[in-house]
Order: sequence, then structure tokens, then C-alpha cells
Amino acid sequence: MGITSELEANRVQELDELLTILKPRLLEYISKSDPNSSNYQSDSLGNYQEPQFLKTQFFKYTEDELTKPVANTDELFAVIDKVLQYSVNTWNPGFMDKLYASNNPIGVISDILLSVLNTNSHVYTVSPVLSVIENYIGRKYASLFFTNNKTTCGGLTFSGGSWSNITSLQMARSLKFPDTKLKGNGNYKFAIYTSKHCHYSVEKAAILLGIGANSVFKVDISDDGSMNIDSLQETINRTIKEGYTPLYINATAGTTVFGSYDPFEAISKIAHKHNIYFHIDGSWGGNVIFSDEHKYKLKGCEHADSITVNPHKMLGIPNTCSFLLIPHVGNFQTAMSLQAPYLFHGREDDDDENYDLADGTMGCGRRADSFKFYMAWLYYGYEGFQKRINHAFKIVEYFVTQIKQDSRFKLIIDDPQCFQVCFYYKPKSYKSHDNTDITRFISRELHKLGKYLVDFSPNPTAKPKENEERGEFFRVVFNSPILTDKIIDDLISSIIKVGKQFEFEN
Amino acid sequence: MGITSELEANRVQELDELLTILKPRLLEYISKSDPNSSNYQSDSLGNYQEPQFLKTQFFKYTEDELTKPVANTDELFAVIDKVLQYSVNTWNPGFMDKLYASNNPIGVISDILLSVLNTNSHVYTVSPVLSVIENYIGRKYASLFFTNNKTTCGGLTFSGGSWSNITSLQMARSLKFPDTKLKGNGNYKFAIYTSKHCHYSVEKAAILLGIGANSVFKVDISDDGSMNIDSLQETINRTIKEGYTPLYINATAGTTVFGSYDPFEAISKIAHKHNIYFHIDGSWGGNVIFSDEHKYKLKGCEHADSITVNPHKMLGIPNTCSFLLIPHVGNFQTAMSLQAPYLFHGREDDDDENYDLADGTMGCGRRADSFKFYMAWLYYGYEGFQKRINHAFKIVEYFVTQIKQDSRFKLIIDDPQCFQVCFYYKPKSYKSHDNTDITRFISRELHKLGKYLVDFSPNPTAKPKENEERGEFFRVVFNSPILTDKIIDDLISSIIKVGKQFEFEN
Repeated sequence: MGITSELEANRVQELDELLTILKPRLLEYISKSDPNSSNYQSDSLGNYQEPQFLKTQFFKYTEDELTKPVANTDELFAVIDKVLQYSVNTWNPGFMDKLYASNNPIGVISDILLSVLNTNSHVYTVSPVLSVIENYIGRKYASLFFTNNKTTCGGLTFSGGSWSNITSLQMARSLKFPDTKLKGNGNYKFAIYTSKHCHYSVEKAAILLGIGANSVFKVDISDDGSMNIDSLQETINRTIKEGYTPLYINATAGTTVFGSYDPFEAISKIAHKHNIYFHIDGSWGGNVIFSDEHKYKLKGCEHADSITVNPHKMLGIPNTCSFLLIPHVGNFQTAMSLQAPYLFHGREDDDDENYDLADGTMGCGRRADSFKFYMAWLYYGYEGFQKRINHAFKIVEYFVTQIKQDSRFKLIIDDPQCFQVCFYYKPKSYKSHDNTDITRFISRELHKLGKYLVDFSPNPTAKPKENEERGEFFRVVFNSPILTDKIIDDLISSIIKVGKQFEFEN
Repeated sequence: MGITSELEANRVQELDELLTILKPRLLEYISKSDPNSSNYQSDSLGNYQEPQFLKTQFFKYTEDELTKPVANTDELFAVIDKVLQYSVNTWNPGFMDKLYASNNPIGVISDILLSVLNTNSHVYTVSPVLSVIENYIGRKYASLFFTNNKTTCGGLTFSGGSWSNITSLQMARSLKFPDTKLKGNGNYKFAIYTSKHCHYSVEKAAILLGIGANSVFKVDISDDGSMNIDSLQETINRTIKEGYTPLYINATAGTTVFGSYDPFEAISKIAHKHNIYFHIDGSWGGNVIFSDEHKYKLKGCEHADSITVNPHKMLGIPNTCSFLLIPHVGNFQTAMSLQAPYLFHGREDDDDENYDLADGTMGCGRRADSFKFYMAWLYYGYEGFQKRINHAFKIVEYFVTQIKQDSRFKLIIDDPQCFQVCFYYKPKSYKSHDNTDITRFISRELHKLGKYLVDFSPNPTAKPKENEERGEFFRVVFNSPILTDKIIDDLISSIIKVGKQFEFEN
């Protein structure tokens, strides 16, 4: 009797069987969230459930739980069914909460291929195809932004916009002050500049890199939510006087709350004047690069030292897919490789390409998220991405036009620059100046209907006395390509209807 | 005419069609790598291909490439077929290169569910089920290691062992020196201790955290590749005299090259004596915790402040799935949240559980890798994982027993502690003392056969004069549950056969 294990003895038949059972469940799950389907249920998004309830649905919390394998396929699919039932069904067009939308058919296919290949894209030997594809699509993507460096630029994926931003700060420090790789921050007193509306990852990056949150200087914003250039210049001047070494400016393309775009052209000039590394966090708004109509918002981005862009947000690539793009791709290794600094040399030509991709990151093993983007780009083409983005802007425009006609709605930013719209909703008889209660109430009721999941937020910089309106407002994201004017009409009437309930309750 | 986009207008039918075409291709791809299948081709692993060749297979490098969508399904699947054809087929039992194996049926199903759900597990509102599951399975997993803290321990996933290790170093600094969150490293001169055989991520973590590679003190190893305790104590004493502040000891459970286990019990005592944070990098070898027979290798791990363990390595969970486990789960938020330090308080009871998981990380958006682990644990049970691990050790033992009988093989470590075996192979007439050429030649030839992908490595600490043998040796990883003694026999005879060719060629 030889040495064998029965664990994966029939893996082909096993996978065949599981796929056969799973497929109709998945198609049903998607179809009930598809307005074009006869199976459509507008409330398929799912209701809010408390953690305590979900725990009782899944776990027994006994010592011997999970000791033995699941008894049979029925028991396995009983769990799978509950996972589907109680999760938020992101295919429902009412999923308007976060800065991403549902997956789509080519996204699912790409994920399956990644799963079956089980490639680790750290080293070329085990990842020949996916590494070549990452380099190709990284350059193709980067060349849309770095129009002056089309043949040297490139990009790698990281597991989310925060990690791309963190990597960009490491790149800044490593390229500008290479002695820090061996010696650490030492006596440098680095300063980081970003607007008050930036994503929290800038602050977390500063903490992680041992620079500290106190060295992140938050620049004032203008009325449209974009970075105020005068305030940036003043802040730099002041911190230099205080003995700081200016290291890094983060500008945002599509801020988290308002969706505003910082003035990149003007910022790049200031960065250049002071020899400061210039990063753009375009995790959310960077993909307007695919729209001939809207890409003017990125004017000046070609001067950046790096740009974070997440295809998993605006472009509907499955979670997660985030790129850090740079004008000279060899700098990934220059900044990240463990070779001693005296061995570094720029690698700016195609013949000297690196395919051991982990060497250009601070990590090692990695999933080839770039493959999902390549497959979607192949499937939809540049033209398809453009249509997706222009459609979302049309939906935004339609929504804004509709609510401007109703005095109960009040826009926070008159002319939204991205796919989200921020607004107060206040029924006529509602007296309070603080909108938090009614915003939370309405969004919770919409969720209970199983039809709409919308987000709310306070204004990151509002001072109460500046404005009659106070507290939290709605932030609704129109990212799904299956949104129509009819769905928007229904959303508006649903808000009004729920708001009326609230009036009576008060 | 309303506002619509045709992009995902028929997504249910589209996905149905694509899945229908894809499924038989996947089953064929797997079956040809399955020795139990009538379709089995032992050379299905795939040949080595140069990047330049692969580029010509996929890309035209024209300006208008990817502008239009793919013409039709045939064109799409022509690309998919090439991706499968030229990728390394990790389902082949000859895939023995890296510290992971193939995926398996439940792994593919889990990835498909994650893809269809498209959940972002950063915030509870959009990730109710998967966040509750991550907390549950994180605690269940952690409680195997932290046997004294079963009700307070927990774990979160990061996108690979390096990122878990990086997070552990941030946790060390943030918990031991909370002022660094606001002020950065400042005047602290932190010291980090690890063995000369540790993974490179410890050094990269020190660089990323602004501590610098020079502050990573590499402790000597004992003959078996484990950390030498006397050397650790001496190094700590010396660095304290030199003015360093000891911050962090990294011990390794399963080193990258040899698979050795550091002496955790002894290290924990030293760490405790000097109040140093004690981390275990068990990315590779930590999962022997599932084997009653082999978990003694982790003795003392319950005293660690954190442990990295990757289910995507020993347990066959799809890439990537890496946990950072800690004895008091509330410390994720204490260390990582952006709240000011004076607001921090430990959260050590179950009622105060956090479900907005990103708040306990340095990132934001995240894929719920933990779900894949939960599904596999459910499917195989603790018992299944135990079988998998014990089977691998039996294969290792069989291989070692066989090659010990042949003087052409020479083990580097007599008693391998993990799933990899390191050895020289030298045909009788081969005179050179440097084994690099023949090791590379044989591994390349095995790859050309499409049957075996094995790795090679230099000894991280060998001094040439210490040993008659020099240069690179084989490092072969026996991780797949479908390995049998027969396959091992064939591997050995393949090495000998290829080695003979080499003799003649010289």
C-alpha cells in the first residue's frame, strides 16, 4: 500500500459537481437584481441584519465546531445559500453606498481563471503569462496619464488604494532620500502636504512610514472641495521655516466625500519649485481618463511622480484592483528592491524589463489583480470604459436636475465632479438645523425596504456657523451601468415617501 | 428615450454563456494534471517560455490595441486558451517550486462566491456576513495558537505574509511607543532582531516603517537553521549598549529555505525579560498547528504578541490568504485606528467586537480572503487539514529515505522540519565543488520536460570553506495532497536521468 491521501482524489468530478450545483444559484442571485430579468425583485438588495443575528445563523460556538468535514453537499450549500441570502446583493442597481458597483460577467470569468491558475505573480518562473500581462497593461494604463513618458511608464497592482498610496510615499522617500533605506528617517523631519478632504490613507501612510500624523499638513480647500493653492504655498513656506524637509504632496482626483479634483497643474508647479514628490490619489476619480469628455479634470496629471487609480471602483473590475502608476517603471525596483543603494540604477528601457514583480513592491506573494483589468479592457475596450463613465455622468446630471426642482433637496456641491452627489433632504415641516437624524433615518428605512443602500457623511471641513444647514448629509454614488432615469425617479420618490413618514413620527 | 447603457444589459445570459463555454475547458485543464484521470498528461505542467515569446502571443503593441471591444466570444476564448496553455499548471503534482500548491474544488467555489458577492470587507454595512465570518474564523484560528487567550484572541487577513509581517511591526511600535503615531520615530533608535535565515519581509518592514535596514540585527543560526539563542541574547545586549531601543523580535516558524523552526519558548523568555515585542512569522510553517503529531514544533508560540500564518501555503487555500493573529483582538484598532492615542482603550470582550474591519488595518478596501479559509475549514474540517499536513510529512520522509540510499544525493539538513527538502545532486563523475551549474541545469531540464518545477537556492549563511559542497542546491516542496510514493520515485529517477545527460555533456 503506497502513500496516498484521499483529500483531493476526485477533484475533477468534485469541482464538476459543485459547479453544477452552484451555477443556477448564482444566475438566480444575479437575475433577481437585474431589472431586465423576469425574475427581478427590486428589494433583492437585502435588509440590514445585526451581527448577533448573523452569528446565530452561521455558528454554534462549540469547541468541536469545524472539527469534522461538512457532512455532504446539501449541508455545504445550506451555508452557501445563507451567505448569499444575508450578504448585500451588489448587483441590485440600488447599491449606491460605496465607491464601487457590482461585478459583471467578464469579471466573474477573470476571477475564476485566477482561482484555477492559482498563480503567485511574485516571480516570473511561476507566473510567466500573468506577469507579462501585468507589465503590458500597467504600461498601457500609465501611458494614458503620463503622455510625455509613454515608453518608460508602467504600473503594478497593490491590494487597494491605501496600499498603493502607502507604496507611493515609500517611493518618494526612497528616491528623494535613498539613505533612509538603510538608516531610516534618522534626523529628517519630513513634511507631507494634502488637502483637508483627502482620504485617510495619507495619514495612515505617514504613521506607517514612521513620519507621524503630526507631520501631515492638511491644506485648506476652496468652495468646490479642491485644494486651495495659496494655502498649499503658505503651508509649505511655514513648514520650511519650522525646519521641516518637504517630502510629498498628495493631491486627490475625486475626493471621498465630494468627488472633487485638486488643481494638478498648479500643484505640480509648486512641487517642482520646491523639489517635492508629487503624488495623485486617483483611486476613485482617476478613471475619468477614459472619457474624452471628462478627462480634462485630470489636466496636469502628466507631471505627477505617481498616480493611484483603482479599476475596481469606476470601471467595475472585481474587488480589489488598484494600480500605482509611475512615469519610469524601473523606479519600482530602484525604490523597493533590497539591493544596497549604491547598486541602484534607473531602468528606463523596454529591454531591461523586470518580470519578478514582487521585487518592485514592499511585499512578496501577490494575486495578479491586473489580469482582471486586462480581461475587462479586452472585453469592453477603451470605448466600453468610456461609455460606462459617460453613462454615470448622465445619471448624475439627471439626478441633479431632478432634485434642483424640489426645495426639500439641497445640494452640498452644485456641480458634482464625480459619480457621487451630496445633498441634504429636509421635509417642509422639519425644523431642526442638524440634518443628522433625518439623514440616518431615511437611509436606514431605504435599506429596510431592501431597495437602496446609500451612504451619509458629515462635511469634512464645515464650520456650523458658516451655514444654515448642519450635520450629516446623503452621499449617493451612481456607479452602476444598469442605472436608468426610471430607477433615479424611483429613488427620489422613495426618499420623499420615507421622509414623509419621518414628519409624522415627529 | 431614457438614459440607458447597453454595457451590462444582458448580464445574466452573458454570464451563463461564458460559464458554459469556460467550464469544460477548466475541467480539462485540471484533469490533464490529475494522475487519477484518464486524461492525465504528466507533462501538463508546461514548458518554460521567454517573456519575448509570450509578448508576441498576446500583444500587438499598436496604438489602437484594446480600443474596441473584443469582436466575439471566440476571440475572447482564444486569449483565455493561451493564458491556460502558457501558464504554469499548478494542478500538476510536479509543481514543487514555491511554498504553495494547487487550488482545489472548494477553493474555486469560494473564489467564485467572493467574485459574485463583490463584497468590500472594510465596513459592516456593505459586508455583514463576510465580516462576521472573518471575526469568527480569525478567533477560531488564533485560539489554536494562543491557548491562554482563547476568548480574547483574533485575526485579520492581509494580502500576503509580507503585509501581515509589516502590520505586526506597526503593531509593535504603536503599542509599545504610542507617541510614534503622532510624532513618528523621532529620536527613537529602534532595534529589530531576526535570524539570518528569516524572510526578506522583515527587512522590508523595517525600511517601510522608517526604521531602516541597518537597524535589523541578523542573529546567527544553529546547525539546524534555527535561531541561536545565545547569539540573540548577545546581540540584544550589544545593541542596548550602543544606544538602541529594542522594539521587536521576529522568530520564524518554517524558514523560507530550510523550513526550520526557531526556539519560541526560549525566545519568548528573552523578549519578556527585555520587554520586546515578540512576533512569529509562521507564513509557511505555522499551519503544522493542525497536526497533533507535528505541532510540538510551535511550542511556546502562545507567548507571542502576534503570529503570521498563511492558509494559502500549507493548507491549499487559493492565493492569497494570510492572517495576522494576536492574543487580544482589540489591539488591531488600538494600534491602527486613526483615533488619537488618548482615546485608546483595550477591547477584550466579545460584546465590544469591531466589525468595521478596515479600522484595524493600515488599509481601507479589502477582499475577504478569510472567507476562503472558512469554506475550506468547513469542507475539510480540522481533521482534513490534519490529514493534509501529515500526508505531506510522510511524502517528505519517503523522499528523504530514498535519497539517503544514493550517494549522489546529499541532504543539506538531515531532518527536514517542514515540507521542503534541500539537497545537492552530483553525478559520480562530476568534479566541481560548486553545485550551482548542475543544479540549474537539472532544474531547467526538468521544467523543459513539463513534468517538474523545482526551486534552487544558495545557503543563506554558508561559508565556502566550512563545507566541501558549495553553491546552489535544490529546494523541493512537497505540498500537494495528490503526491504519492510513485510520483516521488519518478522524480528521483528523472533527476538521475537528467543528471546523466549532464555528465555526458561535460
